[in-house]
Amino acid sequence: MKDAPLNIQLLLTGNEIMSGDTVDSNSALIAQRFGEAGLGVYRKVTVGDDVALLRAELSDMATKADLIIVNGGLGPTIDDLTAEILAAVAGVPLQEHPQAVAHLQQWCAKRNLQLDDANLKQSMLPQGATVVDNPIGSAVGFEMTVGRCRIICTPGVPNELAAMLGPIAAELAAHAPQGLGRSIVRLQTFGLGESTAQQIISDAVPNWPSEVELGFRAGAPQMEIKLSIANAADRDAQRHCRETLEGLFGDHIIGEGDTLLAYRVLELLRERGASLTTAESCTGGLIASMLTRIPGSSQGFHAGFVTYSNAIKQSVLGVNAQTLADNGAVSEDVVREMALGALQRSEADYAIAVSGIAGPDGGTEEKPVGTVWLAWGDRHTIRTRSLVWPVDRALFQTMLAAAGLDMMRRFLLGIDAEPRYFAQRQAR
Amino acid sequence: MKDAPLNIQLLLTGNEIMSGDTVDSNSALIAQRFGEAGLGVYRKVTVGDDVALLRAELSDMATKADLIIVNGGLGPTIDDLTAEILAAVAGVPLQEHPQAVAHLQQWCAKRNLQLDDANLKQSMLPQGATVVDNPIGSAVGFEMTVGRCRIICTPGVPNELAAMLGPIAAELAAHAPQGLGRSIVRLQTFGLGESTAQQIISDAVPNWPSEVELGFRAGAPQMEIKLSIANAADRDAQRHCRETLEGLFGDHIIGEGDTLLAYRVLELLRERGASLTTAESCTGGLIASMLTRIPGSSQGFHAGFVTYSNAIKQSVLGVNAQTLADNGAVSEDVVREMALGALQRSEADYAIAVSGIAGPDGGTEEKPVGTVWLAWGDRHTIRTRSLVWPVDRALFQTMLAAAGLDMMRRFLLGIDAEPRYFAQRQAR
Repeated sequence: MKDAPLNIQLLLTGNEIMSGDTVDSNSALIAQRFGEAGLGVYRKVTVGDDVALLRAELSDMATKADLIIVNGGLGPTIDDLTAEILAAVAGVPLQEHPQAVAHLQQWCAKRNLQLDDANLKQSMLPQGATVVDNPIGSAVGFEMTVGRCRIICTPGVPNELAAMLGPIAAELAAHAPQGLGRSIVRLQTFGLGESTAQQIISDAVPNWPSEVELGFRAGAPQMEIKLSIANAADRDAQRHCRETLEGLFGDHIIGEGDTLLAYRVLELLRERGASLTTAESCTGGLIASMLTRIPGSSQGFHAGFVTYSNAIKQSVLGVNAQTLADNGAVSEDVVREMALGALQRSEADYAIAVSGIAGPDGGTEEKPVGTVWLAWGDRHTIRTRSLVWPVDRALFQTMLAAAGLDMMRRFLLGIDAEPRYFAQRQAR
Repeated sequence: MKDAPLNIQLLLTGNEIMSGDTVDSNSALIAQRFGEAGLGVYRKVTVGDDVALLRAELSDMATKADLIIVNGGLGPTIDDLTAEILAAVAGVPLQEHPQAVAHLQQWCAKRNLQLDDANLKQSMLPQGATVVDNPIGSAVGFEMTVGRCRIICTPGVPNELAAMLGPIAAELAAHAPQGLGRSIVRLQTFGLGESTAQQIISDAVPNWPSEVELGFRAGAPQMEIKLSIANAADRDAQRHCRETLEGLFGDHIIGEGDTLLAYRVLELLRERGASLTTAESCTGGLIASMLTRIPGSSQGFHAGFVTYSNAIKQSVLGVNAQTLADNGAVSEDVVREMALGALQRSEADYAIAVSGIAGPDGGTEEKPVGTVWLAWGDRHTIRTRSLVWPVDRALFQTMLAAAGLDMMRRFLLGIDAEPRYFAQRQAR
């Protein structure tokens, strides 16, 4: 091993990336996982599925890099060229790799599929290549060393790449002494914007310790805050920074690592042996879907109602016709009756209800697109709140489904303080 | 102008992209806008904010490309290096550019801000550079020609880039006659794998016309098949290929462009003035969520039921206790009663019902994880089918929700032929 950092480069291939049809998130994933292992990516090159171009790029890169991750082009179709290119650059023929054939056979058998020629193409690997296991997909990864450069070829399908990266990063980290003291704490938050969070931290901590790198990753609906240190000696500083963040953002922190709001809510329900139901209008089943995506959700979630029309709000949830006539479907009284109706129909312990105007149509001067009423609580206490969150339909549904789960999380934890987004998103 | 396509390359800079903290969507935006103007991007390179690396990359690229779009590094901070690098590569000094200064003064005045030194750095451009207007941000773009290569430097802030790209793409298109004949047909399919589709095409059309580029984009749940031609003269060949695909895949084609299954189902319902309801167990609200993500879905979708537990299947949908006891929740009789119950409760015209074992737990020898029963139909006819689709929980839910929508699409269209995935995914 050298002491200098490894020169790691990425070669991404795919016409769909070059055309802009697909946004490449794979290279960010690789950089993140490598970063967590203390390894930096030096350069990345992206080209379409073109033999001459790919070959020139890989040849050139292999003379400069210590390690190349090739991503994409492992599939069964004629525009999947990676094995062919690597063989050409290494100056070896393609040959059927028994381990890859066995993997394909198992993969097809498990799915009751016939192994066809197109699939079998995926077992033709450069002579001398080593198989890298793909626990999810049909195409195995493979690697070989050309000159002094190690080349690892990985699949373009994001979840297959993700599954393969863990072991690769771990193995590299074990050989990268600079990575050994590295430690990252990731905190999941909901209801904070990146620039707001940055401003609050800057105001509160003018002299942020330089040894603790602060990072943000804004997603929808959650935002991650990351505290990275490069040396084990800085763990105290990292812990101190974490306490500072907990002090500043407190109840906006959902949990550590990859914790999702739905996971946290189900965890809190499980601790109480309790169950939750949902009555959704504008979020249209998304809260239920977020909950049921979590393995084991059946313990805490038995019933959800998507009640889009007024007639269904009445017949399925027992919302009063007069309440609808007097207040409209997007109103405090209706959303409260939806929550109570769902509790009664499902015999669940807790309920979330949402009714709003997701757009693009349906807004009025009094209730513009983005207006929503939320209700949450139990048989004894139903709380309600109106917000205005005027973003596009899909984002509106995502943020409001998450807000419903967040209010349930706060209710279960007994947090009475209002989240920041209540003030930011309140109706005028 | 040459007749060969322009060799267009992108150079992206930014530590936040290299670390994976930010996913680069700018290069997709550039490629899309250029694609619409008939221009392809040939290659892109991404590096961090490092003087030596950026300079080497830009020098090398300028000897090969006709046009380089540099993105990022125009801001006011010390890690914004683009102007300095371009000056070095062109062999000219940086100098204050009056038009850039004027832009900054106006920008600051409009916002009641003081023009400071950090901002003024943004007016230091390579001698001889031409300003490219930035209608949104403080940093102007700029361009110059080095050797035979035209280099345009653009801001990394996405909405500033977007505002600048329109005029650039329009000007390039006006000088790119080769782009005028470009045409792309995209077909959305469900139930075909990439390798199956490729195999079927290879078998049926051994001599695929080289002027019609065939591309696949496998997503979950849909797969896109793309037919691209570079010249208007090849439109007949493109049309012919399209007819071939329609002959081969027929009822697996959902529609053109970006058509989603849920959109197509809602469209068919609208044509009939009819409505649909859902009764979901293992898909947990995902079908409802896919439907309600589409604007205007309230016309055809009023009610959805997520009935996860047996008790709720009985109380909410009226499934018979005896049917559950005799067959278990994942059974033909239960899923039929779920569909009928949902039709009755919602007064909808059509229903989809799903009950299955999403995993990772809950499988048995007789009904392993991935087993599912689907029901679809109307008051007169309920059809049912069992499939085994053993993939991870999230993908299972996505594919089965889509399969439910696909069966409803086929039912509404009166397609009796079984889709390919029925044979591939059948229970043993």
